[in-house]
Amino acid sequence: MELDGRKRVVIENVKPSIDGGFPVKRIEGEMLKVSADLLCDSHDSIGAEVLYKKSTESQWSNAPMHLVDNDRWESSFHLAEAGIYYYTVRAWVDHFQSWQHNLVKKFSASQDISVELQIGAQFLKKASGRVPSSLSESLQTRADALIEETDRAKAVLLATDKEITALLRAYPDLSLAQTFPVQYQVIVERKRALYSSWYEVFPRSCSAREGVSGTFRDCERRLPLISQMGFDVLYLPPVHPIGLSNRKGKNNSLVAEEGDPGSPWAIGSEYGGHKAIEPSLGTVEDFVDLINAATSYGIEIAMDLAFQCSPDHPYIKSNPEWFKTRPDGTIQYAENPPKKYQDIVPFDFETDSWRELWEELKSVVFFWLEKGIRIFRVDNPHTKPFDFWQWLISEVRERYPDVIFLSEAFTRPKVMYRLAKLGFSQSYTYFTWRNTKAELIEYFEELSHSEISEFFRPNLWPTTPDILPQYLQFGDERAFAVRLVLAATLSSNYGIYGPSFELAINEAPEGREEFLNSEKYEIKHWDWTKGEKLRKMITVLNNIRQNNPALQDFRNTSFYPVDNDYLLFYIKATYDQSNIIAVIVNLDPFNPQTGKVHFPLQTLGIDSEEPYLLQDQLGEERFIWSGAQNFITVDPLRAPAFVFKLHKQFNKESSFDYY
Amino acid sequence: MELDGRKRVVIENVKPSIDGGFPVKRIEGEMLKVSADLLCDSHDSIGAEVLYKKSTESQWSNAPMHLVDNDRWESSFHLAEAGIYYYTVRAWVDHFQSWQHNLVKKFSASQDISVELQIGAQFLKKASGRVPSSLSESLQTRADALIEETDRAKAVLLATDKEITALLRAYPDLSLAQTFPVQYQVIVERKRALYSSWYEVFPRSCSAREGVSGTFRDCERRLPLISQMGFDVLYLPPVHPIGLSNRKGKNNSLVAEEGDPGSPWAIGSEYGGHKAIEPSLGTVEDFVDLINAATSYGIEIAMDLAFQCSPDHPYIKSNPEWFKTRPDGTIQYAENPPKKYQDIVPFDFETDSWRELWEELKSVVFFWLEKGIRIFRVDNPHTKPFDFWQWLISEVRERYPDVIFLSEAFTRPKVMYRLAKLGFSQSYTYFTWRNTKAELIEYFEELSHSEISEFFRPNLWPTTPDILPQYLQFGDERAFAVRLVLAATLSSNYGIYGPSFELAINEAPEGREEFLNSEKYEIKHWDWTKGEKLRKMITVLNNIRQNNPALQDFRNTSFYPVDNDYLLFYIKATYDQSNIIAVIVNLDPFNPQTGKVHFPLQTLGIDSEEPYLLQDQLGEERFIWSGAQNFITVDPLRAPAFVFKLHKQFNKESSFDYY
Repeated sequence: MELDGRKRVVIENVKPSIDGGFPVKRIEGEMLKVSADLLCDSHDSIGAEVLYKKSTESQWSNAPMHLVDNDRWESSFHLAEAGIYYYTVRAWVDHFQSWQHNLVKKFSASQDISVELQIGAQFLKKASGRVPSSLSESLQTRADALIEETDRAKAVLLATDKEITALLRAYPDLSLAQTFPVQYQVIVERKRALYSSWYEVFPRSCSAREGVSGTFRDCERRLPLISQMGFDVLYLPPVHPIGLSNRKGKNNSLVAEEGDPGSPWAIGSEYGGHKAIEPSLGTVEDFVDLINAATSYGIEIAMDLAFQCSPDHPYIKSNPEWFKTRPDGTIQYAENPPKKYQDIVPFDFETDSWRELWEELKSVVFFWLEKGIRIFRVDNPHTKPFDFWQWLISEVRERYPDVIFLSEAFTRPKVMYRLAKLGFSQSYTYFTWRNTKAELIEYFEELSHSEISEFFRPNLWPTTPDILPQYLQFGDERAFAVRLVLAATLSSNYGIYGPSFELAINEAPEGREEFLNSEKYEIKHWDWTKGEKLRKMITVLNNIRQNNPALQDFRNTSFYPVDNDYLLFYIKATYDQSNIIAVIVNLDPFNPQTGKVHFPLQTLGIDSEEPYLLQDQLGEERFIWSGAQNFITVDPLRAPAFVFKLHKQFNKESSFDYY
Repeated sequence: MELDGRKRVVIENVKPSIDGGFPVKRIEGEMLKVSADLLCDSHDSIGAEVLYKKSTESQWSNAPMHLVDNDRWESSFHLAEAGIYYYTVRAWVDHFQSWQHNLVKKFSASQDISVELQIGAQFLKKASGRVPSSLSESLQTRADALIEETDRAKAVLLATDKEITALLRAYPDLSLAQTFPVQYQVIVERKRALYSSWYEVFPRSCSAREGVSGTFRDCERRLPLISQMGFDVLYLPPVHPIGLSNRKGKNNSLVAEEGDPGSPWAIGSEYGGHKAIEPSLGTVEDFVDLINAATSYGIEIAMDLAFQCSPDHPYIKSNPEWFKTRPDGTIQYAENPPKKYQDIVPFDFETDSWRELWEELKSVVFFWLEKGIRIFRVDNPHTKPFDFWQWLISEVRERYPDVIFLSEAFTRPKVMYRLAKLGFSQSYTYFTWRNTKAELIEYFEELSHSEISEFFRPNLWPTTPDILPQYLQFGDERAFAVRLVLAATLSSNYGIYGPSFELAINEAPEGREEFLNSEKYEIKHWDWTKGEKLRKMITVLNNIRQNNPALQDFRNTSFYPVDNDYLLFYIKATYDQSNIIAVIVNLDPFNPQTGKVHFPLQTLGIDSEEPYLLQDQLGEERFIWSGAQNFITVDPLRAPAFVFKLHKQFNKESSFDYY
């Protein structure tokens, strides 16, 4: 950019912006608020606007910025539809506005303004060349009037009235405008990227008959129940052919017994690889049928993207250059010494044929996109290069802006955040291991209110096929209920690994946070008629989420004090406060806990003497409170929490109509 | 940068770095610590280094980075001399190190490692091509030994001993190394940019005879006293010819009386402009003599750079295109309506001839650089474009890396910070108006410990010719003493506007924070024999600063609690804690104040039961304290503060020599 010394405004600290130039995330229909520090030497007025456009547009639109405070300016623009938008800031010295201000000051101080009025006429004449031709003449006339008007007070009005001010603001002199050199990006996704309720099942465990592998058809028969519970995403572990070589047996044993189905994540056999379907589940056509059936229940199928192979995967023969060969001629299987994963062979992303490998993996994604899949849960993305995901997701989004990627990276925090930055729509979190009040507040303050909320959308899972946390091993159905309420209300995205969750299955191998007899290695025959209590609570919670927009966002979770370390109190409100949900969870699953709750009256616009009504959505309780401090008891025997809808007093006099 | 999918390490959040890509600042001899988040997929080890070079060098040097915590890596390098250094980060997957770790784990788990040893031999053979030829053969030999050694334990030692580890770290495989795309800059200045003691005098007030304008010769005669007080920078208001047209009289009156000398900031007359000397002060040669005389006292002359003109400046005739002409043909003088500064005409930096204007102003700076000036105090830099200063300072630094620029911008905070970011070495601050304990702590926490400390070096002035704060108007000599101690110890750069300061001159026009009978508009005849009390305190403080390196930095000021709102307690220590100064100031100039001081024993490495010795440097008091909490009384009658040197106990048994 060539230096032009006459451009005097500098633009700093444009927000939102992420270290490394990654895009921020929003959903369709939201506004994006953009702010920047705008500085100019001397005392001149500044004009500024946000420039924005969709990636598919060539012309910039503009949104005028206004000064907030301390040289910080802002404006907002509408994100009409899914896709990528660019934005930046343009600013200039607004000489006409400076002149208006000074004119008024000089006139008020009874100084001579005759030369000032001549200067003003020059501004207007110059502007007449910028405005639409229909307005040009009236500007010329106004310029003449400025000089000819002998009543100085009238001249000042002519120079500063609303009409002329608005016109010159609409058609500013941009000849010395400065545009910020960086074009930032916002990825706009459909609403489900922000608000979704996931249910995970193994199709092979869906049969009504014990000892028989379930199929996609069996899975279809579970859709009515899953839909009744209120879920809108059904996530299936990998549905591809499972390898035979080194297949793992029950409880991850090294040798599979006859009939052991193997881990669905050991992908590839003589029946095909990532573009094929495990024969015992059905065919590609059956899978498409399941997608369509789910759609009719308002449910989307989320597919598992596990980019790794069993030793029997066709790639191993067709493309040995994509794998690491050891000096003894064997292929390197996955390991984290001394642990070995002999049923899984990782790709070698340092292969010289990385381009071909990337393209092949992209073709896998596009294969399923063409079958109707729009949500992918990505298995262990942190074991494949960051740049690969960034490229893949961007390639997919360019053609299918409605695709949602969930990152299953249970790893170090910065790695998880990098994956979110580079494009994943949602992410698994540490929620699974955050149990105490202090832990939950610290973690969700970070997720809800720090810069991280610009790119990382938490998806909360109380359990997964891999993880049964100690809290649930020690607890029972009541502990599951606590974690359920937290997951369903702390974030707008959450998921349940069922039906083991509803059944409160909590047996683990000694000293490990895993399931005993894990479903990963065997076919389960669940009794779908049991687990009624938790299933009912799930149903109610999903219903509350559906009816309360405040629960359809995660960036609005704010914690407030209760003087009891087992009681966690948080409020979620829509931006306009038209919907306000107050949640008080008892983190102790066994005993009633009582505490003094500090309600943030001022934040919510409630007078300190005004009563406010709290209507429990999980149960039937109602409270009429007034003042900030009130006592409450949460008894796990009744429910693990109150999920209050707040009704502010509506019979204020001021709202009456006195005509 | 072309994408190479095989480069798997990503580099994030490199620090230090400033929004907008501005350089950070350091001084000669310091180390620069560089840190970054380094992430790689999977479990591989990472190798990394900081790359750095002086702007005059073509080859990068490297400083190996080490992991600190949470994927944060760091390293440091030495800033040998003044100038600009570049730095960035390079990182790669260290496959050899990964292999070493896995080998040990597998061997410890009694797994077969024969194939691993073959892989190791491959690494060493490959490395033998990278190391200096003298080491190549021994690597080959080691590679063979790895395979031939039948004792596995010995083989593991051969693969992991210090020698081989160090060699492979020194000559890593960089074929897939990733270099961060941004090259950051650090401006390295000489020590005076960080540690300086300024004294400001009007040469015209230096005469020994009343009613006579002082000259540079008179000013020279004041050097012994100024040097005795311990100052190392003598700052003179503009020394150029002062305009006659619209010259201001006493107390900024519109009409000058016969003999009124005018404001030195109204530059330019028939005797010349910014490259000339006001005849009543002497000649250019006299000025050079003053520079040389000052040098012999260890004092540098700081020149005032006030880029503005009196209506009589030669530029107005020679280059009318550099000024704004009004429709009535007059030239636009400076104003901030309704205030008018008729004796000053600003440059129009939006002139089409901005290039020529910039070059002319640069030639002014170079003119005085060639006369021996190396420090400029820049008047109102915030009324000239930011880009101009960035260009000018960078042009000067390229040729004269030892030049120091002080920004006199009393304006909005972000404007002040922008000027510092773009290159000013030091800056005036809000110190002048920060009086209470809470105000001082908040402000100096920001200046000492936030990112701002990377580029903004505070220079503290209790008064200036423009500013006499209310605190000093209301107080007396004792109040001046409080502000003096604060200025001299809160920052390593400070300045005194004398001799009015030593004389505790505090008369102001009603309701204004200015001097009555300001020296800006008249010649003063100071009695340099008076003001002994404050002069002595200045002398002692400058001496303390000289003898205690802890006071020669501003980034090391940390505040600690005292339970009295008039007592301010802060500690400054060198990085190695070899010099520790503890300051307790009584902000109440009139009454003794007592409080319980909380000494940060742990931070200072003092056991809670160990006594520690505090020796007052301002007075003669000594305290032997033990434990964190001790009472103290600061009585303004004695001194406004204790400036303690901390002596830790030195007779610990462990320090004895038992041989």
